[in-house]
Amino acid sequence: MQANPNYLKLPGSYLFSNIAKKVQAYQAAHPEAEIIRLGIGDVTRPLCPAVISALHAAVDEMGQAETFRGYAPDLGYEFLRHAMAEQDFRARGCDIADDEIFISDGAKTDSAAIQEIFSPDARVAVCDPVYPVYVDSNVMAGRTGEYDADTQTWSRVIYMPCTADNGFAPALPAETPDLIYLCFPNNPTGAVATKDKLQEFVDYANRVGAVIIFDAAYEAYITDPEIPHSIYEIEGARTCAIELRSFSKNAGFTGLRLAATVVPHDLKDRDGVELHGLWARRHGTKYNGAPYIVQRAGEAVYSAEGQQQIKETVAAYMKNAQVILQGLKEAGYTVSGGVNAPYIWLRTPEGMTSWAFFDDLLDRAHVVGTPGSGFGPSGEHYFRLTAFGSYDNTLRAIERIKKM
Amino acid sequence: MQANPNYLKLPGSYLFSNIAKKVQAYQAAHPEAEIIRLGIGDVTRPLCPAVISALHAAVDEMGQAETFRGYAPDLGYEFLRHAMAEQDFRARGCDIADDEIFISDGAKTDSAAIQEIFSPDARVAVCDPVYPVYVDSNVMAGRTGEYDADTQTWSRVIYMPCTADNGFAPALPAETPDLIYLCFPNNPTGAVATKDKLQEFVDYANRVGAVIIFDAAYEAYITDPEIPHSIYEIEGARTCAIELRSFSKNAGFTGLRLAATVVPHDLKDRDGVELHGLWARRHGTKYNGAPYIVQRAGEAVYSAEGQQQIKETVAAYMKNAQVILQGLKEAGYTVSGGVNAPYIWLRTPEGMTSWAFFDDLLDRAHVVGTPGSGFGPSGEHYFRLTAFGSYDNTLRAIERIKKM
Repeated sequence: MQANPNYLKLPGSYLFSNIAKKVQAYQAAHPEAEIIRLGIGDVTRPLCPAVISALHAAVDEMGQAETFRGYAPDLGYEFLRHAMAEQDFRARGCDIADDEIFISDGAKTDSAAIQEIFSPDARVAVCDPVYPVYVDSNVMAGRTGEYDADTQTWSRVIYMPCTADNGFAPALPAETPDLIYLCFPNNPTGAVATKDKLQEFVDYANRVGAVIIFDAAYEAYITDPEIPHSIYEIEGARTCAIELRSFSKNAGFTGLRLAATVVPHDLKDRDGVELHGLWARRHGTKYNGAPYIVQRAGEAVYSAEGQQQIKETVAAYMKNAQVILQGLKEAGYTVSGGVNAPYIWLRTPEGMTSWAFFDDLLDRAHVVGTPGSGFGPSGEHYFRLTAFGSYDNTLRAIERIKKM
Repeated sequence: MQANPNYLKLPGSYLFSNIAKKVQAYQAAHPEAEIIRLGIGDVTRPLCPAVISALHAAVDEMGQAETFRGYAPDLGYEFLRHAMAEQDFRARGCDIADDEIFISDGAKTDSAAIQEIFSPDARVAVCDPVYPVYVDSNVMAGRTGEYDADTQTWSRVIYMPCTADNGFAPALPAETPDLIYLCFPNNPTGAVATKDKLQEFVDYANRVGAVIIFDAAYEAYITDPEIPHSIYEIEGARTCAIELRSFSKNAGFTGLRLAATVVPHDLKDRDGVELHGLWARRHGTKYNGAPYIVQRAGEAVYSAEGQQQIKETVAAYMKNAQVILQGLKEAGYTVSGGVNAPYIWLRTPEGMTSWAFFDDLLDRAHVVGTPGSGFGPSGEHYFRLTAFGSYDNTLRAIERIKKM
């Protein structure tokens, strides 16, 4: 019996596990250090009252035989699929049917699993820097060729550099891919894609027969009314795009786990095979649905009360983003992001590597961030801070950074 | 762009989705029929009070900034891993460490995903009949060769027939596999494996270098003190076995979603690679942990109160099993299972096919069961009923069957 050799190709361990280990080791060596975490994209504000009420009510249902619910429908409860289709899509003029929405336990899970429904030899294009899951899940599936440790790239992956020169919004891929992963508002850079930029990608994907995996996990942070919240606001997207939605960042569900993936019926492969059916088959065979109580919590997010409450939470995080942006600028850093996204992307000072800056920041300011190089070679000399801390901690972190 | 051709090899849709569609169509055509579902292995009794209390308490924690929890640790909260290791394993003399337990959202998810950490060309051995997920997940991964519709078998899968002749406990595989899926107490036959039988498999797996995937989802239903609850009660299992554990059937978590997979550090591939590290990497890259509130619910199952309450639930279902067993015998059926398992396996009358019996039972008794042939060719002419209905419905179903 042999272990999957593709797994063994992965260099090192998962970025955020690495960071957690480094921080743990530092804390053990410096027990007095009050470490502030602005690294991993985890939220800190509690679930909103509408969600908490819905959870309690659903828990009570699970305790009574008359209202107990066993296995959820494979693809999600109708009440949640309908609320999402209506409010996230049809209210924005996007033509998405209830049954094109698949409920799951997380956008990380879905973004890692979505590659499965494509041919094992599919070519993948990703932004550089990029959320590591898109690449690593394809490495594990054996699609990425060989790793070059010098350039930190995979031989079969097509990289689309996102740099200061292009405003962190990529040009079309240099080679023709089968899959294109896009995440806007972007993790890690905090950049957005304009309607024109997305139209360029949708037109391209339709022309070459590629599929766009559009990760919209951060759409709730968009403040500019001209920036699309969904790929389906773009004409032609129904025939070339899958969209990932998350409750983690808009409603603080990182510890509750809920997400959705949209696969339109019009999306077909070169032989006319509907990808919707394949994703449905994957759910049916490999998954047993998100917990009923969590789907009710998700429904509560779409109530009038819930919508108001999550807007307040998002606004609170965006206040942090302003503190970080402003403070870093005052301290002389070159920064971007943080306006339509909860991530701030800063240039490391004096040509320091991302990891050297990580160590320096941890050691001198006791602040944890994420090294840009962990997201890909074009992330080198950059560093990500998140707006998801508490207001007080964010203020303290910035004061410490200013004193460095 | 091409869809995954391995997905397209799957014949028809997932068994339980098929059944659901058939029942829905029948109900639509006969709105007056009071259908009783003893088909899918879904539970009907509410969550026990200890679990409900733990859920409410954890929900309250999620509503306060001081006690809010975001992302769970990748591999599960220590409080739950410890409780399981201690009570499910070490209390039975099984040498399992806390960190060898990986918490997840379901045994279906894990049993579908576990194949990923093995070589793409691994040969798989399964019981016949078998829980379809073991086979289908390997079909999707491209390991199973071609499907023969006549024999309903895959060319690269090694089948281990479980028939009345061998008491529904398989002989060793006829060809050498890399992976051996075993589920005892068995789904769908309700049969158990003795300690000697499991020792035979463990010794064999160690000899040929195969891994046993041992699905222990139904261990709580064992009434015979001589039958092992865990593969790790068998000497040598730490070097050849992975075990799947579920909260669905012992504690009614089918709609709450919680499970665990045990991967001992001693389990290595032919090159000495620890599979524990690969499964950890899969969790870290493709999963974000089970909800905190659900893990607290799982912890409550291990409290003294919780243990008492789930025993009462299991006993109630086993009373149903007795009703079904006894009733079917009185009606002249040949039956097995139902003593150490919640499943009753009956021989269809007069050589009827499993699906013909399904239709007949639905039409004449308005009872839904599961056709044995849906679990594999050796399941033809058999039929599965479950003890997970309510007591009243179970009584009524059996009365109707007796009148057929």
